[in-house]
Amino acid sequence: MENEEEIVELEKEILECISQRKVQKLRQLFEEYPIIDIAEALDNVENIADLLFVFRVVSSDYTAELFVELTDAQQENLIAAFGDKQLIELVKNSYADDIADYLEDMPANLVSRVLKAADPQLRADVNQLLNYKENTAGSIMTTEYLSFNKNETVESTIEKIRENGRDAETILTIFVRDNSRNLVGTVNLDDLVFAKKEQILSEIMDIDFVTVSVNTDQEEVAHLFKRYDLNVMAVVNATGKICGIITVDDVVDVMSQEAAEDIANLSNVSNIEDPYLETPVLKLVLKCAPWIIALMILQVFSSLILSNFQGEINKFAILSVFTPLITDSAGNSGGQTTGLMIRSIGLDEFHRGDWKKVIWKEFRVACTVALVVSIFAFGWLMLEMSTGIVQCRLSDYPSLNVSNDTVLHLLVALLVSVTLAVSIILSKTFGVILCWFSTKIKKDPAVMAEPLVTTLVDVTSLLTYFLIWSFVIGPFLGI
Amino acid sequence: MENEEEIVELEKEILECISQRKVQKLRQLFEEYPIIDIAEALDNVENIADLLFVFRVVSSDYTAELFVELTDAQQENLIAAFGDKQLIELVKNSYADDIADYLEDMPANLVSRVLKAADPQLRADVNQLLNYKENTAGSIMTTEYLSFNKNETVESTIEKIRENGRDAETILTIFVRDNSRNLVGTVNLDDLVFAKKEQILSEIMDIDFVTVSVNTDQEEVAHLFKRYDLNVMAVVNATGKICGIITVDDVVDVMSQEAAEDIANLSNVSNIEDPYLETPVLKLVLKCAPWIIALMILQVFSSLILSNFQGEINKFAILSVFTPLITDSAGNSGGQTTGLMIRSIGLDEFHRGDWKKVIWKEFRVACTVALVVSIFAFGWLMLEMSTGIVQCRLSDYPSLNVSNDTVLHLLVALLVSVTLAVSIILSKTFGVILCWFSTKIKKDPAVMAEPLVTTLVDVTSLLTYFLIWSFVIGPFLGI
Repeated sequence: MENEEEIVELEKEILECISQRKVQKLRQLFEEYPIIDIAEALDNVENIADLLFVFRVVSSDYTAELFVELTDAQQENLIAAFGDKQLIELVKNSYADDIADYLEDMPANLVSRVLKAADPQLRADVNQLLNYKENTAGSIMTTEYLSFNKNETVESTIEKIRENGRDAETILTIFVRDNSRNLVGTVNLDDLVFAKKEQILSEIMDIDFVTVSVNTDQEEVAHLFKRYDLNVMAVVNATGKICGIITVDDVVDVMSQEAAEDIANLSNVSNIEDPYLETPVLKLVLKCAPWIIALMILQVFSSLILSNFQGEINKFAILSVFTPLITDSAGNSGGQTTGLMIRSIGLDEFHRGDWKKVIWKEFRVACTVALVVSIFAFGWLMLEMSTGIVQCRLSDYPSLNVSNDTVLHLLVALLVSVTLAVSIILSKTFGVILCWFSTKIKKDPAVMAEPLVTTLVDVTSLLTYFLIWSFVIGPFLGI
Repeated sequence: MENEEEIVELEKEILECISQRKVQKLRQLFEEYPIIDIAEALDNVENIADLLFVFRVVSSDYTAELFVELTDAQQENLIAAFGDKQLIELVKNSYADDIADYLEDMPANLVSRVLKAADPQLRADVNQLLNYKENTAGSIMTTEYLSFNKNETVESTIEKIRENGRDAETILTIFVRDNSRNLVGTVNLDDLVFAKKEQILSEIMDIDFVTVSVNTDQEEVAHLFKRYDLNVMAVVNATGKICGIITVDDVVDVMSQEAAEDIANLSNVSNIEDPYLETPVLKLVLKCAPWIIALMILQVFSSLILSNFQGEINKFAILSVFTPLITDSAGNSGGQTTGLMIRSIGLDEFHRGDWKKVIWKEFRVACTVALVVSIFAFGWLMLEMSTGIVQCRLSDYPSLNVSNDTVLHLLVALLVSVTLAVSIILSKTFGVILCWFSTKIKKDPAVMAEPLVTTLVDVTSLLTYFLIWSFVIGPFLGI
């Protein structure tokens, strides 16, 4: 579903069930609709008695799932309001990674309430997960998985899954360890189900499995899932022992986070962890203002150049009309190159040795774009000046060494379009080289390359513009 | 793995096996390493005899998987070089959606060779898949799934899966239909395995499943997978009959494509379908140059304003030094807002009725950023002018109505920082309103909002700048 009208309808029904305390109907809605839709319908329920009613009457399989999807405020209020028995019930039905996720943002007294309600094993798991650094494999893995000795038979494995499987986050893949508890293979549930009962796991297991360490960056984890089309992956420690698993649904979340991070970086916003509407105004200001200020400081170089050529502008004010056109076009061209590179890096298109080809290719692209754009610009500027959109009249500059307006227009259009050509080639070349360099030093090009390209490009394009003016066009015009 | 050295090592081993025709060792490598790593190691093998050798000696389970991962050129050469028997073997071991994928870019004679090698059912499936519009659920779904009548018992279902399951892309979820073949539920393999043998499917099936139609956009499909934490989803036709399934690994690919598309759009590059290195230079130029030209045309408004205020610049050239600072800062601020909005829209944070809150919040952010940035800018400009980085001397403008350089600097700094404050507030407000508007008319804000914001912001900030100058600061200075 996730159809606007259906959600509105569901919201109405649920709120009615709650306000009129209709137990049967409410239970039925929990069976019929995905939990996330129900959570969204409950988004604006702030009365804690209403939420408690839901948690009391609906089966705890559903409510544990629901709890994860509620807003932070709702979660905190519920934990504070739950009786001990309810809390134990909730924790018992939750996965360790989910508990760790919502504890991360809670006040200490509520955290200790939740941990007290967990049994020792679960508490140890949650504590361990809370200690992994953010954005690593450790922080997104879960500790509820199934692993068996490689000499176990298919029959006894199935029997054990039947007994214990319900606590695992996935039983679709089981992990096989040797006698020293190192991970040596994986078995998919379907292979297990269709194997002969007396076979042992080492006969049917796959050995070309992929693992990561607890400290691997989550972006790398997502990359491996994509590359190897995985549904689940083991996280191992330094000695090769399995300490958790990551399932593909967690990776789907990581991927949207990482894409969001790239977009924020490209737009010069520092990374935001919380949803926009839950982030306070001042925090948003802190993510935005420093970048604007930093970019303003970097502009000191352009100001320096413009200030040094004030004399030229004084003599021929029309020059200042075209500076934004030149710096913007060059900046946009450089931005296209860094965008293309960031895109390809994200799609994992470039491997060892490819960069030389990439730089050469982008250089050829740059030359062609420069040619096309500057030819267009020449015509466009002639049009702007001849129609008077941009006023460039010989009568305003009586001392000039040319015979009529058209010659003047031709020279100005030539100046601007040659500058554009040079700037576009430089900006695209800078762009690709800076992206190569930032991957080389293992920095994110979206953070580093963009502002640097803009600054470099502003400086070089303004310099080109005023130098061509001062040494070629200006003297020719007799200025 | 996917560790640079290991891949280099693997490449060496494979190329050695091929050149020395070591059959056993080659087969062993295919068992030990993921196919994608092997495909990458074979990336530069162009000799068709070498590739044919691999396809001849390695089991066709592996080579069918390998074929999908080869480069377009390698695939075409192989299809052309295969004997009929080899081609039939390849096609028999491939999934319909994979075949449709690689046929899409092949010359017609090779397409018809492949289709001839497929059995009638597979040929029909492939043909159907080739007909769905790109980027829809139909184009990424596969037709190999398992579905059973709701009255089937668990025992007979398991028996049938055992017989036919190997042809399905996933047997982890099976689909349950009623007597008129409409989809009525899903059963996970684990629920099936652990159910009592005599139960019927309708007793154990989940009914809160999510479906899409063949024409649903793939971005919406990815969004639903994320929202509902799905592993597989049914694609149904208008009457509710299942016509294919989409698995999460396809969605992971869609997500990176969509993220790449957002990045390209934000960087003003038209969407690129092929990997960068496989896209011809001229095609890349076509994706870049029109945008630069379009943005240049949009700049006609700023040129118009600058040209109209040439007189002012003539009288006080220092004005032109700060125009890039103002337009860039305002543009960057607006870009931050659109970036934040695109990020939140991608993460599905905004629902019905949220936009009013969002616009109000962003307005408050805008005012605060404007205040912070303009206070900083005031100090920064005073510093630039007093140190002479930007030369602003009373001696250059003898007719001015002020007593010393510092007063002049204060007035200029005031002009620029007030303009900055106004421009930042306007650009962020424009940004959020344009994003709201583009979602309202169901357009991608990354394509529409960015260039429009930049143009609007350039115009309004330049106008503010010159109007404050002409009506307040200029007259005060006696210009």
